[in-house]
Amino acid sequence: MSKQEKIVTGLGKAELHRILVRGYDLTEDLVGKITFSQMTFLMLVGRMPTAGQTRMIDALLTILVEHGMVSSIVAARLTYHTAPEAIQAAVAAAILGAGSVHLGSSEWSARMLQEALPPGTDGVDLDAIAADVVKRYEERQQRIPGIGHRTHADGDPRTDRLFQIARETDVYGRYCDLLQRIARAAAARRGRRLPVNVTGAIAAVASDLGLPWPLSKAFAIIGRTLGAMAHIGEEIRNPMAANIDAAIKSALVYEANEKEKT
Amino acid sequence: MSKQEKIVTGLGKAELHRILVRGYDLTEDLVGKITFSQMTFLMLVGRMPTAGQTRMIDALLTILVEHGMVSSIVAARLTYHTAPEAIQAAVAAAILGAGSVHLGSSEWSARMLQEALPPGTDGVDLDAIAADVVKRYEERQQRIPGIGHRTHADGDPRTDRLFQIARETDVYGRYCDLLQRIARAAAARRGRRLPVNVTGAIAAVASDLGLPWPLSKAFAIIGRTLGAMAHIGEEIRNPMAANIDAAIKSALVYEANEKEKT
Amino acid sequence: MSKQEKIVTGLGKAELHRILVRGYDLTEDLVGKITFSQMTFLMLVGRMPTAGQTRMIDALLTILVEHGMVSSIVAARLTYHTAPEAIQAAVAAAILGAGSVHLGSSEWSARMLQEALPPGTDGVDLDAIAADVVKRYEERQQRIPGIGHRTHADGDPRTDRLFQIARETDVYGRYCDLLQRIARAAAARRGRRLPVNVTGAIAAVASDLGLPWPLSKAFAIIGRTLGAMAHIGEEIRNPMAANIDAAIKSALVYEANEKEKT
Amino acid sequence: MSKQEKIVTGLGKAELHRILVRGYDLTEDLVGKITFSQMTFLMLVGRMPTAGQTRMIDALLTILVEHGMVSSIVAARLTYHTAPEAIQAAVAAAILGAGSVHLGSSEWSARMLQEALPPGTDGVDLDAIAADVVKRYEERQQRIPGIGHRTHADGDPRTDRLFQIARETDVYGRYCDLLQRIARAAAARRGRRLPVNVTGAIAAVASDLGLPWPLSKAFAIIGRTLGAMAHIGEEIRNPMAANIDAAIKSALVYEANEKEKT
Repeated sequence: MSKQEKIVTGLGKAELHRILVRGYDLTEDLVGKITFSQMTFLMLVGRMPTAGQTRMIDALLTILVEHGMVSSIVAARLTYHTAPEAIQAAVAAAILGAGSVHLGSSEWSARMLQEALPPGTDGVDLDAIAADVVKRYEERQQRIPGIGHRTHADGDPRTDRLFQIARETDVYGRYCDLLQRIARAAAARRGRRLPVNVTGAIAAVASDLGLPWPLSKAFAIIGRTLGAMAHIGEEIRNPMAANIDAAIKSALVYEANEKEKT
Repeated sequence: MSKQEKIVTGLGKAELHRILVRGYDLTEDLVGKITFSQMTFLMLVGRMPTAGQTRMIDALLTILVEHGMVSSIVAARLTYHTAPEAIQAAVAAAILGAGSVHLGSSEWSARMLQEALPPGTDGVDLDAIAADVVKRYEERQQRIPGIGHRTHADGDPRTDRLFQIARETDVYGRYCDLLQRIARAAAARRGRRLPVNVTGAIAAVASDLGLPWPLSKAFAIIGRTLGAMAHIGEEIRNPMAANIDAAIKSALVYEANEKEKT
Repeated sequence: MSKQEKIVTGLGKAELHRILVRGYDLTEDLVGKITFSQMTFLMLVGRMPTAGQTRMIDALLTILVEHGMVSSIVAARLTYHTAPEAIQAAVAAAILGAGSVHLGSSEWSARMLQEALPPGTDGVDLDAIAADVVKRYEERQQRIPGIGHRTHADGDPRTDRLFQIARETDVYGRYCDLLQRIARAAAARRGRRLPVNVTGAIAAVASDLGLPWPLSKAFAIIGRTLGAMAHIGEEIRNPMAANIDAAIKSALVYEANEKEKT
Repeated sequence: MSKQEKIVTGLGKAELHRILVRGYDLTEDLVGKITFSQMTFLMLVGRMPTAGQTRMIDALLTILVEHGMVSSIVAARLTYHTAPEAIQAAVAAAILGAGSVHLGSSEWSARMLQEALPPGTDGVDLDAIAADVVKRYEERQQRIPGIGHRTHADGDPRTDRLFQIARETDVYGRYCDLLQRIARAAAARRGRRLPVNVTGAIAAVASDLGLPWPLSKAFAIIGRTLGAMAHIGEEIRNPMAANIDAAIKSALVYEANEKEKT
């Protein structure tokens, strides 16, 4: 096997008597000494976070854990119901839904931000970039990802909270700034309120933390993994699976003589 | 629809202007104020943890994040390689391996502990229970889950660390105690060292935290979700997918004329 | 790398200008010449099937494709709803539910049959084995997997159909025979009808086809993969996702003041 | 619940004593009477196929079942290795890789074809459409999906086979025609051979069969589901899991002092 065919990872290594994670001894340096949010930053960004960055990560990890009986959770509960002996499969069913419509949608907003303002770019005019973004989406007649909200026309309280924490922790940077300028430019252009939504806020904060855009949905996926596990825990303690099944069946109806339809 | 066909959850609820999680207002009370490990305890156990319980949860969540290029991570990287546009699927591929052999094996140890000593049981003789467990597994000629280790015959440093933290945080309780008694009884019976391994330690600590046995693998699944995400991040920044493929292909060989074999 | 570290497969091999599958040239010998059910037998059993075995495989593959809006399908539709750009993830969500309760339950029945009558055993008294199986399950107070049915106390028409085809195709062998003897012995013992159900019939037929017990659920998984794909196709042509969501939400209710409950 | 909140499916319905699939009685009309490939057409297209369409479907379903130790199969084997008690999870891990790079790539080619020539369009000039497609991809400097091949510059034998069967079965229609014109136009423009590859052939044939473009990867997903199941069967009969692990580990190397890199 030639050298080129080897693959390497700089993340971790299991030796005989110790495990190294990004150069740290797992048992000696990390377990019992750092929080999971510090571990998250260490793994995803590559160095230990500041206290502020840690608080920001905790906010991002907690904000999407639990929103009630949403699609991903119903998928997990149904999977648990028919395969209770393999709860990892039920949790996987939950996170498989982290796509473009829900749960994973911050990816699209982060991509827009990082393509408009590539990491490392210097001396930029954020208002010009914002105007250009708004113009391009208008030409393509596409929704700008990360702004606007069906129910929170006056601003999503979760966005305000994340941006507030971002300012308090010095994480707020040019991606948060750019997204807010985009929102203002779009609102001016269209003559209606188009506030940054929670998806956009997560995307902007993740970008300011230094994450490449596909990783901006890490927080949703990790958080909802916990959420799904908790819903399975609720099923274990207080089985409602039979009810779920009945509830869903009563809502789903077969339409007779559908043979012609495809 | 009759009342019985409705299903309910006590975990969370999305209202028009706020989200409730176990009765707390998500934006007001939780985000920016608690850590992800506190959220984990709140979701899985149902109340806010003490400072000690929080530190214990952080230890459990961090200990299985990263062990190098293990099976679950290779599965995630391969899946990312062929479907890079849907990283949630690659992460799901990683956690699907959290079964009885690796990553999910604490479940079997926790089950043994909680079936031997059901939650809520009082006035018990732990040594008698331990002896009985050892005897039953001997009769069935089965390995006792959670004790013994191929490479760490003198004790797994990760076990020692978790039990040390459990004592420091007052989490150490009768399940940790029972498992150590089982390990000693088995060693005496078989005449060789059979220390508690890290799987067993996680199972015992999770049981002392009040989790039903299937949830003892929550920490492995959440932790490895982060680990898989970080490996995908490494692929994004420094693509090795082609090398992975070549490396694996060079290790896998088709044996000609296998038609007869099944 | 030592020889022992190499792994081999006898199933297939991609060469520069041709692909071999179990020794056959894929393009020359198989594509356009055999059916998918013949391919299924070739892959799972290792040789080409007889005409009868082919018909039996087709029956097993078609019988579980579509049963309406069952759990696995709702999980697929919900996953499609939030991640429409990755339909493989929605299909995966469907088959993740193929566990012990639904869709994968033939595994438990096939295991019982093959453990009671190991493949290759000769000169056996099937009635004695059946009596022994019934006695053991009675002692452990467990349900015998593959017999009994909530709604079809007089016999499941799908079972009758599968056994009829098994007889017509000469697939019916000692595993089908054994399961029917078990059903009769259990009924005699308990004084009520306990007919073989469709899960049991699939398990017995798969065992008579020579499949190891864990593969008995291959037919359910392949069939439901098609079923899930068809439901996603229906969503694509006639989107009902929003309705699904509303229908499910209207059936799922949060119970206030649940903070105390865990 | 209002009428709008109900959802309906025209695919199937479980009644007390029978199951309806697209209006047919599953046990009476389908099981034992039709092949799985007929069922596939019935489910995905909505009516019974002709004999020719059935043969075409069998060709599409068999062509991607088995290509040796490819990424999706290694992911399945690794998952089986750590969670052998839940083989549905291992199969799911295999199909999760059916994305844009491998296994699911026909989707992109089918999308191009159906967007260039929407189903139902009449009186079109295929050469003009082909020229336009080639020009657009050239302007965007993108590869045209479904044509060109690293190793088969003179034409992929699998493509020739699929198009031959498509002609023999009268499935060959304007999508197959259009893709071949695109390939010729692109070759003329770039001055090198750019034959239709197997991904493109599947996309064109699926489009001529009447499938919406996202369903063109149904055949890959169903076929590889069988492939993964067969590889798991090989592991069950002849466990190589430990070898896989060793083989892969020997190919994957941790690079020390990687702490600085991210």
